[in-house]
Amino acid sequence: MSGNTIGSVFRVTTWGESHGTALGAVVDGCPAGLLLNESDIQQALDRRKPSASVSSTTRKEGDKVEILSGIFEGKTTGTPVSLIIRNVDAKSSAYNELKDVFRPGQGDFTYQQKYGIRDWRGGGRASGRETVSRVAAGAIAAKVIARSGIDVVAYTYAIGSIAIDRSKMPADKNLKKFVLKNSLFCPDSDAAARMDKKISEVRKKGDSLGGIVEIVVSNCPAGLGEPVFYKMDADLTRALMSIGTVKAVEVGDGVEVAGKMGSEVNDQMDKKGFRTNHAGGILAGITNGEKIILRAYCKPIPSIAKPQQTIDCKGKERIIEIQGRHDICVLPRIVPVCEAMVNIVLADHLLRQEAIKNEKN
Amino acid sequence: MSGNTIGSVFRVTTWGESHGTALGAVVDGCPAGLLLNESDIQQALDRRKPSASVSSTTRKEGDKVEILSGIFEGKTTGTPVSLIIRNVDAKSSAYNELKDVFRPGQGDFTYQQKYGIRDWRGGGRASGRETVSRVAAGAIAAKVIARSGIDVVAYTYAIGSIAIDRSKMPADKNLKKFVLKNSLFCPDSDAAARMDKKISEVRKKGDSLGGIVEIVVSNCPAGLGEPVFYKMDADLTRALMSIGTVKAVEVGDGVEVAGKMGSEVNDQMDKKGFRTNHAGGILAGITNGEKIILRAYCKPIPSIAKPQQTIDCKGKERIIEIQGRHDICVLPRIVPVCEAMVNIVLADHLLRQEAIKNEKN
Amino acid sequence: MSGNTIGSVFRVTTWGESHGTALGAVVDGCPAGLLLNESDIQQALDRRKPSASVSSTTRKEGDKVEILSGIFEGKTTGTPVSLIIRNVDAKSSAYNELKDVFRPGQGDFTYQQKYGIRDWRGGGRASGRETVSRVAAGAIAAKVIARSGIDVVAYTYAIGSIAIDRSKMPADKNLKKFVLKNSLFCPDSDAAARMDKKISEVRKKGDSLGGIVEIVVSNCPAGLGEPVFYKMDADLTRALMSIGTVKAVEVGDGVEVAGKMGSEVNDQMDKKGFRTNHAGGILAGITNGEKIILRAYCKPIPSIAKPQQTIDCKGKERIIEIQGRHDICVLPRIVPVCEAMVNIVLADHLLRQEAIKNEKN
Amino acid sequence: MSGNTIGSVFRVTTWGESHGTALGAVVDGCPAGLLLNESDIQQALDRRKPSASVSSTTRKEGDKVEILSGIFEGKTTGTPVSLIIRNVDAKSSAYNELKDVFRPGQGDFTYQQKYGIRDWRGGGRASGRETVSRVAAGAIAAKVIARSGIDVVAYTYAIGSIAIDRSKMPADKNLKKFVLKNSLFCPDSDAAARMDKKISEVRKKGDSLGGIVEIVVSNCPAGLGEPVFYKMDADLTRALMSIGTVKAVEVGDGVEVAGKMGSEVNDQMDKKGFRTNHAGGILAGITNGEKIILRAYCKPIPSIAKPQQTIDCKGKERIIEIQGRHDICVLPRIVPVCEAMVNIVLADHLLRQEAIKNEKN
Repeated sequence: MSGNTIGSVFRVTTWGESHGTALGAVVDGCPAGLLLNESDIQQALDRRKPSASVSSTTRKEGDKVEILSGIFEGKTTGTPVSLIIRNVDAKSSAYNELKDVFRPGQGDFTYQQKYGIRDWRGGGRASGRETVSRVAAGAIAAKVIARSGIDVVAYTYAIGSIAIDRSKMPADKNLKKFVLKNSLFCPDSDAAARMDKKISEVRKKGDSLGGIVEIVVSNCPAGLGEPVFYKMDADLTRALMSIGTVKAVEVGDGVEVAGKMGSEVNDQMDKKGFRTNHAGGILAGITNGEKIILRAYCKPIPSIAKPQQTIDCKGKERIIEIQGRHDICVLPRIVPVCEAMVNIVLADHLLRQEAIKNEKN
Repeated sequence: MSGNTIGSVFRVTTWGESHGTALGAVVDGCPAGLLLNESDIQQALDRRKPSASVSSTTRKEGDKVEILSGIFEGKTTGTPVSLIIRNVDAKSSAYNELKDVFRPGQGDFTYQQKYGIRDWRGGGRASGRETVSRVAAGAIAAKVIARSGIDVVAYTYAIGSIAIDRSKMPADKNLKKFVLKNSLFCPDSDAAARMDKKISEVRKKGDSLGGIVEIVVSNCPAGLGEPVFYKMDADLTRALMSIGTVKAVEVGDGVEVAGKMGSEVNDQMDKKGFRTNHAGGILAGITNGEKIILRAYCKPIPSIAKPQQTIDCKGKERIIEIQGRHDICVLPRIVPVCEAMVNIVLADHLLRQEAIKNEKN
Repeated sequence: MSGNTIGSVFRVTTWGESHGTALGAVVDGCPAGLLLNESDIQQALDRRKPSASVSSTTRKEGDKVEILSGIFEGKTTGTPVSLIIRNVDAKSSAYNELKDVFRPGQGDFTYQQKYGIRDWRGGGRASGRETVSRVAAGAIAAKVIARSGIDVVAYTYAIGSIAIDRSKMPADKNLKKFVLKNSLFCPDSDAAARMDKKISEVRKKGDSLGGIVEIVVSNCPAGLGEPVFYKMDADLTRALMSIGTVKAVEVGDGVEVAGKMGSEVNDQMDKKGFRTNHAGGILAGITNGEKIILRAYCKPIPSIAKPQQTIDCKGKERIIEIQGRHDICVLPRIVPVCEAMVNIVLADHLLRQEAIKNEKN
Repeated sequence: MSGNTIGSVFRVTTWGESHGTALGAVVDGCPAGLLLNESDIQQALDRRKPSASVSSTTRKEGDKVEILSGIFEGKTTGTPVSLIIRNVDAKSSAYNELKDVFRPGQGDFTYQQKYGIRDWRGGGRASGRETVSRVAAGAIAAKVIARSGIDVVAYTYAIGSIAIDRSKMPADKNLKKFVLKNSLFCPDSDAAARMDKKISEVRKKGDSLGGIVEIVVSNCPAGLGEPVFYKMDADLTRALMSIGTVKAVEVGDGVEVAGKMGSEVNDQMDKKGFRTNHAGGILAGITNGEKIILRAYCKPIPSIAKPQQTIDCKGKERIIEIQGRHDICVLPRIVPVCEAMVNIVLADHLLRQEAIKNEKN
């Protein structure tokens, strides 16, 4: 039931399957007069594409986006912006032998349970390929929030058990540029080298890896977020958790706060502002003007070459070894997806706040 | 902008401030014909009340609920159920001296930034007292899902750095009863004793403690959750994260999955079903029939007696020592709140699934 | 399923039954800093109360409203405003003999069909008494739109076959005041006298009367309304049609346009603006700055003393003569209800437009 | 702000402009397992196309629909169904000289006021061409409700001042077939002949005509519609009023009820059911099992060849004579659009009712 739309004012509806004709998004509620063209979106899509890196699938999708509506003479008109990305390299035959089998860790079993039918080609809508629509829509959201100076950067914080060393990260002003140059979107080059090596090892084992994405939002004005159920942290974490691979999300100090005392976690203030940012930029569900800091914990890609025990549609036990064309690690490709989801939530809340921020009082 | 309603079919709207006249909830979309009376709700509210335990505020609210509509001859009629809980022991004078000051870790600063005005008495709507409405509505949700056999139990997993020992938990069938008997809602008596002691120590220091709530859902049918943005894990996470104190949420193995390999995390299947439950009962955003397992990481109560640096409304620096009547640890009182939020999300998704689960195909 | 909330930014949820404990509304999304007290709302409620006029029920409800939340020191805080009106003169015993019978023209039969249960006391939630919540919420909406200078006036256009003579209406600037003085809210005193007489006659016959409400909105800025499904006329129509008694709604020239030619209906423009207002202030679903003109056609009160044929819950045929305490004509009491619904829709669209009306482009 | 989505469970989002690349719709919430192919939708689109009739534009659009997602092996999968119809015969040059002028009766002025920018080519999104998306989505809705036996038929009730003679309509069982054979979708052949003649006359005058569409729903189960704001009549009339050309809507006896007495309007019941159907199948906002009867009053096409006074973007007065390629009368082309909107609302409410209609009580 209508689970494919997110947002209230800036509203994104996505559609499409891994091996269907196309995927896309309709962005409704984008303010009129915004400069927007296909290359703005294409750049974001290109970051999500499988790279030369050892970590990625060999499926070759150009992910060429077409804007079908909502733009006139290079600007948004306030009407829905419809985006389409056609599938061109879908090879469903590779899935023929898996069509009756529930792959462990995938949505095969649950989609069958929910709908009584499923598009088994490449995971259908449960495929990671679905996120191409999110990234396309997120690129529009990025332009909306950029007008207010808000900047979002996401990067690889960890792959498997290899985490970055924060002391080796570039300065804030160089961070985004640095991250984009790195094929793993990793802000610590040394860690990146070890991650690359680890990915190669795991690939040889026929296994896969998880990791952690960190997302940082700079220059976000105070006052965004809608208590009590649409708090900024609630909306951001639901958006991240809606990415198939994410199993945990945290804000600011996150899981660590549980073991601490109030005096260690409260962010005290002085004339210059907040002295610390344990809260990760959000207090009582509303942005406080500090950096918003989020981490998304991603599970390993479930499609692995190692033999696995499962059952088929008739309940018969089966052993499968998944070949197909899969990533070894969901990172770095999930990094721009996390960024896109944060862009979308921020664009929505920025516009929501306009509705009630009223000079007339 | 309208952030006080959660749910799509089973829809809860809450209202009320800590020191206002009353708090309440309107539950719309509750199926007709459900047996419901005030004592069903009162029992849930009583669990949330400050206990004799050392951890709690001395504010004495009876939290007596009144059902104002939607019930006829002991049954729901399908029309909105309106609930009200009047405040009787609000002592706003204690807050007089804090009215111009932004308390660290509280919503004072952000509410002022967002709305340009705030009800400073006891935190207004940002107070933990707001959760009384959630618990009241959650009690109705619990009755809705109980008809389908779904059972939710929440308990204290950790307070500060003291976690339970799972091997000491009672058997599943006794868990709920056991937890309810324990003033800390803790399923490990030994850990509970140490937690109690820790709370006393921290109270003496004028500090506060965080902790972890674990929530387990049994007998949930497969098929609930709406891809792609209203996945069950996304909706549960947003619901838990919307509780002011929660800073991180995880599902199943949660944060641990990031450091593991696919072969360690995938839940393989055989004729009897899933062999493991690393996924925490949710695959591709849809319930798989296994237990749903969630953990919410709660920050320490921000109101502490220790001196803290802050500023007032005019930007002047101030040192404050908060007296008031506060809990030392947000647990155990937050435990029934987490349970309520999970009840509400499950009731909504159970009914959503009815809409599309159609025998007519 | 959650049909009791209207609006997107300015969001109103109503609850309550005719003979239940109370009725009320929760208004979420009201901008902070708005001066608001109970007497603002009480005035609107008083207009809806049964008058000394021959047309009204003898049930005596003070309709005393209490604001339970969302106000601090006389101003809205941006949190939900909860309103309650307790029932004090509900006499359910009068309905005892009707409890198994489906009254013609009422919701008895359809509520039973939909929910399998119904609160038969006074029509339960299907009673006209439900509109008290709308009027209360509408009074808040009126204050929101008044800040932008928008003014809404509703009045009796016709009762039965007696319509006003527009040439006898007071000048625009006196209209609202004039209408409020008249017990029938009728802007033509001569017609009002004939209407009063007609009502008396029909009362003696044990029958009831319908009528037409006209609503005029002045000083509405151009640009409100959200194509394509939330056009201003679509939203206003649904709001009026959601009042139980309304069976037709028209905008501007309304039904007459069907029989005309384009040259007769198009509103041509010159330097001073629109030369005519056949469109009733709305073009392509967006306000054009002219007066918005609406008419709602109301059916006669279905509760009549005349004998009527019907069936009971078991399908047995019955003849009923309804005594109870009923209005003879739904006008004038429905007039402030129509006004309230228009206020609510305008407040919502005014705030929606703020969200996207962006100077930053 | 996000005005392009309608429905709650069966949810339709439309996009596209008259002279843009394409138009389309995303249908979310369609139950899985429904047989659906492009020809189902194409048939509906073909009915909306300009006919050989004298009434229609000479723009030649094949309106070929492509299903991009949500279908697998001929059945819906429960994921969003994305539909696209490419524009092939858009000749924007005809609009070059109108690009700075506000055409009377069109959305030119209000779109400019709302968005500060507008796609002036053929009316952009305010064009009647937008309805192609509605008809496409409506065809899917028709299949959803057909499973429950619900049948919707719309037809021309009047064109200009020429109305049908109900006594000349075919029997119910032949009505739909009869209507589809007639180029004006008119169920009275004699009236149709006179309408055709009238259209020719008006064309010669350079003017245009309005008319009335009647929509009848058969076999709708009792119990659909969600009090109080999403009553079936409220939702149906908002859906019809959201069609650009509609200026009034009525249910059952509609406008006539205002002049009648309760005894004339109440539908009495006996063992066989309702004796009359003045209510038009809806009581207290809920379907009662009788035929639903609706009428939509359409204004004449605003684009006329006759000289009209208007202003341009700079406020300068202009006289325009619109050539372009326009229909003379919005009927019959609007007939399938009305039918589509009714289909969509019914599909949504049918599924909504499933969510709460619960055998478990």
